Amino acid sequence: MENSSSISTVARPGRETRQAIFGAVVRAVRARGIADLDIERIAQAAGVERESVRAWWPTDSGLVIEAFRAALASDLAYPDTGDFTADLTTQLAAIARLFADPQTGPYLAAILGLAQADPVVAEEFRALVFTPNRMAARQRFVKAQEDGALRRGIDIDVAIDLTFAPFWFMLLVRGEPAPAEYIDAIVRLSLTGIGTNYS
Amino acid sequence: MENSSSISTVARPGRETRQAIFGAVVRAVRARGIADLDIERIAQAAGVERESVRAWWPTDSGLVIEAFRAALASDLAYPDTGDFTADLTTQLAAIARLFADPQTGPYLAAILGLAQADPVVAEEFRALVFTPNRMAARQRFVKAQEDGALRRGIDIDVAIDLTFAPFWFMLLVRGEPAPAEYIDAIVRLSLTGIGTNYS
Repeated sequence: MENSSSISTVARPGRETRQAIFGAVVRAVRARGIADLDIERIAQAAGVERESVRAWWPTDSGLVIEAFRAALASDLAYPDTGDFTADLTTQLAAIARLFADPQTGPYLAAILGLAQADPVVAEEFRALVFTPNRMAARQRFVKAQEDGALRRGIDIDVAIDLTFAPFWFMLLVRGEPAPAEYIDAIVRLSLTGIGTNYS
Repeated sequence: MENSSSISTVARPGRETRQAIFGAVVRAVRARGIADLDIERIAQAAGVERESVRAWWPTDSGLVIEAFRAALASDLAYPDTGDFTADLTTQLAAIARLFADPQTGPYLAAILGLAQADPVVAEEFRALVFTPNRMAARQRFVKAQEDGALRRGIDIDVAIDLTFAPFWFMLLVRGEPAPAEYIDAIVRLSLTGIGTNYS
């Protein structure tokens, strides 16, 4: 993958063009994998110039990460029904489902694989996926702490890591999908540690 | 990396030769990275034929994984002092130290990176690192359950994932070393979930 520079500061195209480009990128990756992205073909499919795509997204990896993030955004909107346990279960089930989905999991894993060898990809992943997801989770966890559903005095980031890391571990180290019992067990055990309503 | 076939079944060389080869591999990787391992040079350093090394380790990745595992074995021998909390803290601190060590962490991450794109590397990692480590952890966790330090009725593998996954998450996703407070917080929160002496 081309990774000559980092995230672009060039003014972004409008929503419709962005969606057309992201759609073409996701289809291309699902058809032919993450390497050798054909920017010319993607630009054509979205009705824009190759040079414009390159100016907006200087690296293939940044484009792929943003395209998948856009495609998955609705699945990853952190719910807030007022019931922290239910919301956490919903969120972990959504993550487990995406990680187990052959149309998504292998490409997320491939991006993280590239990130281990390429600091630009690692930075793009953190800026475009990890940080916004973490901010959404933190907001929900902080509210849970205010509501009394989460113990006071625990570090929110450690609590989020404890709960979410097992799913990344399954994806990247064990290389297995997380079954439904796994989701329930992680919610139960981590909430016993971090929550106030379990024991 | 060459990955034409999986783990060799050819009779292994003696302990001394193995150590010489593993030492040369670890030095080579630390000097020049994980790609383009110079098997000829490694064979020379260990006083054996290139062909013998290749027969014993058909893939570069398998050789690198085993060499690092051998180099780190003493750091990762799961302790059993009878105090489960102390042993778990010792083990997690050892892992956090290895992951943060610039002579080790980046190469473990690089191997896991390759594993995301290459099923042979993934299988080698599971067979040579994940499975033996998991067996050692499981043995200690089962004993803790028998001793009453770990709740009865919880799934041992889920308990191990919950406790160890955050350190892999730090290494592979967050790309940061885990500070000492992090180790203590993970031990405390996970043991509140899985242990019997915390609340």
